[in-house]
Amino acid sequence: MSGNSFGLLYCVTSFGESHGPAYGGVVDGCPPGLQLNAEDIQKELDRRKPGSSRHVTQRRETDTVEILSGVYEGRTTGTAIGFLIRNEDQRSKDYSAIAEKFRPGHADYTYWQKYGMRDARGGGRASARETVVRVAAGAIAKKWLKERYGVSVRGYLAQLGRIKLAFSSWAEVEGNPFFAPDAKVVPQLEKFMDELRESGDSCGARVNVVASGVPVGWGEPVYGRLDADIAGAMMSINAVKGVEIGAGFAAIEQKGSEHGDEMTPQGFVSNNNGGVLGGISTGQDVTVSLALKPTSSIRVPRRTIDVRGNPATIETTGRHDPCVGIRATPIAEAMLACVLIDHALRHRAQCADVAPPTKVVNPKKIN
Amino acid sequence: MSGNSFGLLYCVTSFGESHGPAYGGVVDGCPPGLQLNAEDIQKELDRRKPGSSRHVTQRRETDTVEILSGVYEGRTTGTAIGFLIRNEDQRSKDYSAIAEKFRPGHADYTYWQKYGMRDARGGGRASARETVVRVAAGAIAKKWLKERYGVSVRGYLAQLGRIKLAFSSWAEVEGNPFFAPDAKVVPQLEKFMDELRESGDSCGARVNVVASGVPVGWGEPVYGRLDADIAGAMMSINAVKGVEIGAGFAAIEQKGSEHGDEMTPQGFVSNNNGGVLGGISTGQDVTVSLALKPTSSIRVPRRTIDVRGNPATIETTGRHDPCVGIRATPIAEAMLACVLIDHALRHRAQCADVAPPTKVVNPKKIN
Amino acid sequence: MSGNSFGLLYCVTSFGESHGPAYGGVVDGCPPGLQLNAEDIQKELDRRKPGSSRHVTQRRETDTVEILSGVYEGRTTGTAIGFLIRNEDQRSKDYSAIAEKFRPGHADYTYWQKYGMRDARGGGRASARETVVRVAAGAIAKKWLKERYGVSVRGYLAQLGRIKLAFSSWAEVEGNPFFAPDAKVVPQLEKFMDELRESGDSCGARVNVVASGVPVGWGEPVYGRLDADIAGAMMSINAVKGVEIGAGFAAIEQKGSEHGDEMTPQGFVSNNNGGVLGGISTGQDVTVSLALKPTSSIRVPRRTIDVRGNPATIETTGRHDPCVGIRATPIAEAMLACVLIDHALRHRAQCADVAPPTKVVNPKKIN
Amino acid sequence: MSGNSFGLLYCVTSFGESHGPAYGGVVDGCPPGLQLNAEDIQKELDRRKPGSSRHVTQRRETDTVEILSGVYEGRTTGTAIGFLIRNEDQRSKDYSAIAEKFRPGHADYTYWQKYGMRDARGGGRASARETVVRVAAGAIAKKWLKERYGVSVRGYLAQLGRIKLAFSSWAEVEGNPFFAPDAKVVPQLEKFMDELRESGDSCGARVNVVASGVPVGWGEPVYGRLDADIAGAMMSINAVKGVEIGAGFAAIEQKGSEHGDEMTPQGFVSNNNGGVLGGISTGQDVTVSLALKPTSSIRVPRRTIDVRGNPATIETTGRHDPCVGIRATPIAEAMLACVLIDHALRHRAQCADVAPPTKVVNPKKIN
Repeated sequence: MSGNSFGLLYCVTSFGESHGPAYGGVVDGCPPGLQLNAEDIQKELDRRKPGSSRHVTQRRETDTVEILSGVYEGRTTGTAIGFLIRNEDQRSKDYSAIAEKFRPGHADYTYWQKYGMRDARGGGRASARETVVRVAAGAIAKKWLKERYGVSVRGYLAQLGRIKLAFSSWAEVEGNPFFAPDAKVVPQLEKFMDELRESGDSCGARVNVVASGVPVGWGEPVYGRLDADIAGAMMSINAVKGVEIGAGFAAIEQKGSEHGDEMTPQGFVSNNNGGVLGGISTGQDVTVSLALKPTSSIRVPRRTIDVRGNPATIETTGRHDPCVGIRATPIAEAMLACVLIDHALRHRAQCADVAPPTKVVNPKKIN
Repeated sequence: MSGNSFGLLYCVTSFGESHGPAYGGVVDGCPPGLQLNAEDIQKELDRRKPGSSRHVTQRRETDTVEILSGVYEGRTTGTAIGFLIRNEDQRSKDYSAIAEKFRPGHADYTYWQKYGMRDARGGGRASARETVVRVAAGAIAKKWLKERYGVSVRGYLAQLGRIKLAFSSWAEVEGNPFFAPDAKVVPQLEKFMDELRESGDSCGARVNVVASGVPVGWGEPVYGRLDADIAGAMMSINAVKGVEIGAGFAAIEQKGSEHGDEMTPQGFVSNNNGGVLGGISTGQDVTVSLALKPTSSIRVPRRTIDVRGNPATIETTGRHDPCVGIRATPIAEAMLACVLIDHALRHRAQCADVAPPTKVVNPKKIN
Repeated sequence: MSGNSFGLLYCVTSFGESHGPAYGGVVDGCPPGLQLNAEDIQKELDRRKPGSSRHVTQRRETDTVEILSGVYEGRTTGTAIGFLIRNEDQRSKDYSAIAEKFRPGHADYTYWQKYGMRDARGGGRASARETVVRVAAGAIAKKWLKERYGVSVRGYLAQLGRIKLAFSSWAEVEGNPFFAPDAKVVPQLEKFMDELRESGDSCGARVNVVASGVPVGWGEPVYGRLDADIAGAMMSINAVKGVEIGAGFAAIEQKGSEHGDEMTPQGFVSNNNGGVLGGISTGQDVTVSLALKPTSSIRVPRRTIDVRGNPATIETTGRHDPCVGIRATPIAEAMLACVLIDHALRHRAQCADVAPPTKVVNPKKIN
Repeated sequence: MSGNSFGLLYCVTSFGESHGPAYGGVVDGCPPGLQLNAEDIQKELDRRKPGSSRHVTQRRETDTVEILSGVYEGRTTGTAIGFLIRNEDQRSKDYSAIAEKFRPGHADYTYWQKYGMRDARGGGRASARETVVRVAAGAIAKKWLKERYGVSVRGYLAQLGRIKLAFSSWAEVEGNPFFAPDAKVVPQLEKFMDELRESGDSCGARVNVVASGVPVGWGEPVYGRLDADIAGAMMSINAVKGVEIGAGFAAIEQKGSEHGDEMTPQGFVSNNNGGVLGGISTGQDVTVSLALKPTSSIRVPRRTIDVRGNPATIETTGRHDPCVGIRATPIAEAMLACVLIDHALRHRAQCADVAPPTKVVNPKKIN
């Protein structure tokens, strides 16, 4: 399996470039009988859509999805679900100025070296616009997880540049264009973004994702751990430079007597492990945190080289997100959902006949 | 491919339990013609071996490897390399006290729920002793990477509990049982570990791993990114809770004008991206950082439940590492090496005919 | 990887149903730099196209392919190649009569049982119209194999019902709608097909496929044998019930002194093994032979049951190939080409550094 | 996944060479809770064991299996099952005469070309002795299939050279060293083999394998068809040159009105399709037939070349099966069982929630 597919049983294949005719994907392995229509996917795509506020790229795309297969009379058939999202607002001329130079921090240089050529229009295959496919595949995964196992996968912006956001409530997350979990901080975010945009620079972000209702038992030791697959999936998102599960890097400074989550008949009393022990879900919330680097396409002039190896200066105009983290929440949710459904299927393949010996109830809610 | 194998072309399969007769593995896909004997593997196993200082588990294992196939007249044949490491010092009775209870922070509970049973002796399959297989597979990968491409994969302890270690030199790393990159800090580490062991508690750690000499071009967009596969591989190591590439979580607070690594005809001037852009290696050092949680098996009494769901107290005696991070350096190196060889092979499969259009030379050393 | 993808490094993913909006596919892993346009694919699709003679289904489809990604300025970029073929001539009402009954010999019954539902229009996902995707993927594979290694992949109809066709020349194969390798036999085939169609019945066929110019060394022991992957790929074609490599079933009655292909400095003197020994190509022609069963959709009344389990009679009107074997030649070629490119890539991944120790030249041409 | 592993969820990895220290394997993905001990595997190995009659190789191997992991207190744990079979009777000097020449029909030449070297002792990795691993993995698969789903996987010798064997009863198959399904023909087989051995030549064979009790619904369209995976698995067995499912090549001359298996409320009335329609099991017997070529290692002198490309004559003494088909029955059963368990797991992963809408009962027994 080459690099444009992921998942063992819920297998997502992606294609498309920023300025090509379309993006599309294939979801293979979805269980049959799931009620599904384009609107189920569209509503997730709309959460990721560009142009929804002044703080993100102004490229105008409706991101309208067309389901091409795998659904019959409103239900999944169990065969491959193909879907298509046409590009509508390519402006390839925006890129002529940078086609022969490499943006610092961007994949321009590495694609060119690897393949001996590159599609410079909008980053080509390296564009974060590819995440539209992930969100579509994740929408199907989320729906099945919710209906079959009651699993919710939700995320929020936890940090924007130096501004840390405390979690207030899930309800607030959907009420603002930042996926901020606290409405009160939104004006501060807007001010920060306005100044950033003005300066022509970009910033990084942290996104947290949480899956609630995951049953105990999903995940496969030793290499196929649930958390290993989550880490790989998250790091495959454009701009992600770090992934934490549970306590993450804070675990370094914890003592074992502090980190290890105690258990009582009422459930776990903490969730430092982020819902995964030994690579297998515990029944607690699965908690994941991502670091996203600042966007590479900025108006601030930077030193680089051109395709002949000569020194050059580059500044990227055109339409870009000054912080890719703002739209990353639905993407991270989608990736977590895809990993979870894959492991749900893998688990029941091997362990369908296991009668779980007991159940620890009511794990303490952490988020 | 189920959970006990990893790698697409350099495929490692692992088996064994802490108190079973043996660990072993199969490396499939190794290029033919590599000079290889047991000693090449043994020297890496010896770096990971238990009992090498008072700061790690006192279980006495020689970890002697036997190569069973795939090598003929001192060279790899291109067929599957099978190898075996017999367990020699099982003390299963150590575990009778905890067989019916679940250690907080350990996989005891999740294995039992997933499979309906568990091998409680030494953690069974969940024991970090499984990493002996990773180190053996990584030894072969390292040797090939070094001989074929001049790639070095090295790591060091970067933090022990709250003690942060500055990098001094690679030479110092091998001269102490902590893989500390600065000999001067060793007495402080020893004092800290002696006190920790005395207290019956455990601590976390940070390990950094660096691959030098990686050519530009390894890694596959979109999901098969080099950094995505590294993240997955690292998170699959026992006790790892976080992974960073390059600037990692520090990228959140960076501006784009700070993070994006500028290029000159002399090379990149910084390495915030950790040697990977768009999922493809840049030719710079690949830099990875891991968070390891504190060991779950501690003597400090903790609340838990038993297999019947009743409240209980547990304290784990027996032989355990008070900090698994101390022996994690060779393991992390092995995983990085395995991912790199896999992508080296994948890259030349697809791109063997690409004449790289130019080369940015002398990337600045960052470590 | 679920059932709608195949290939390890040249990975083909397929979607679409007979009466859905479109078929499409993704080819992942194609080497970069290959000149490719829609016409390269279209000419192979046209060979498989329905309605090209009175002896095949009269469904009117232009099978026009649209390349959606992976090609930039006329060359493959190394990223995923997505393509789309819209359905144009669905007549779903043709199927209302059989929607609640199961055609003997068809997948109607098994899909319904497996998935709890089925798309009865034109066989849904089970329709042989899916092979349009294979032919498109194979067209790319063929072009690369030809340009990079000089490999030709060609096939012909070797038997139609009881009429056996002797090979005359490759030139004649393309000059008739049967892919018959001898123009003289075409009138006999036409007469046979006219009578068959008249009778409302169908017949089976044999197709032979040959790859010439395959270098020695492609294929991986033990399970990943070249012939094993060929057999799997061929048996995955609709209606195929048997696969032979080289002498095939005739090998049963051969003696070892007859079967084993002798070698001289001028090459092999025979090709009973069909170009594969120990799962690895020998450098001779790779020869494959397929048995295709007669079409299940026939006008002859047959006993069956309905969805409630009651006895019923079924006769299938509508538009069907009375012999699927007639259009199978380009499909079988495509599958062979896809397996070959996959193994070409796999071989150079592992063995790029092997200097082949010697070469047996001029293997005798067999076909 | 490289060539020494097969299976998506029930994944078998194999290693070992004919004259190396040992063969071994890893079965990953076996459901937990299956009662399993070495004797369960040993009894299948004993059926394949060399030296059991004068008609097979006289190499003396007890083929004693040691289970190294994955079983605890007599039950599978759900983790990787490692096992080892030491070689005991290597006579490498037997091969010095042929180390620099290539046996016609053998993998000698192709391994040497592919890898630039070969282990000439006993065929190295290409030796059919590798099938010991398949039989061990198949023994576990068979046991689970029988206990969980009531599936029986059985085979018999259907043709030896020109002698065709009619099926009489399963009971007779185990009562003679040929796996002949009719005891009366055994003297004829013995006479034939004695003459063949005398002549220094070898012969081919046909083996039939049947799986009874397979539920309807196993198998994945389009490429992951049950019959496609069976064909691939069978063709991966040493010496196999052809595979048929159901009517196989006889389907070429059948009419649709003859081939398509009619259905009644009492079940299918015939089984031309061999228990698979559209790649999915029908609930009937799954019937597979294999062609095995004659052994390449014969005493009859043959033309060949040496490693320098010079003409040479070769005759192979040493210990060889004059007909590999004689011991192939347990191997073919094992491969079929491994494919079936893999698809059993895959099916319940995706379709665990499907309530099969109806059931066709009492399919007519066909074998």
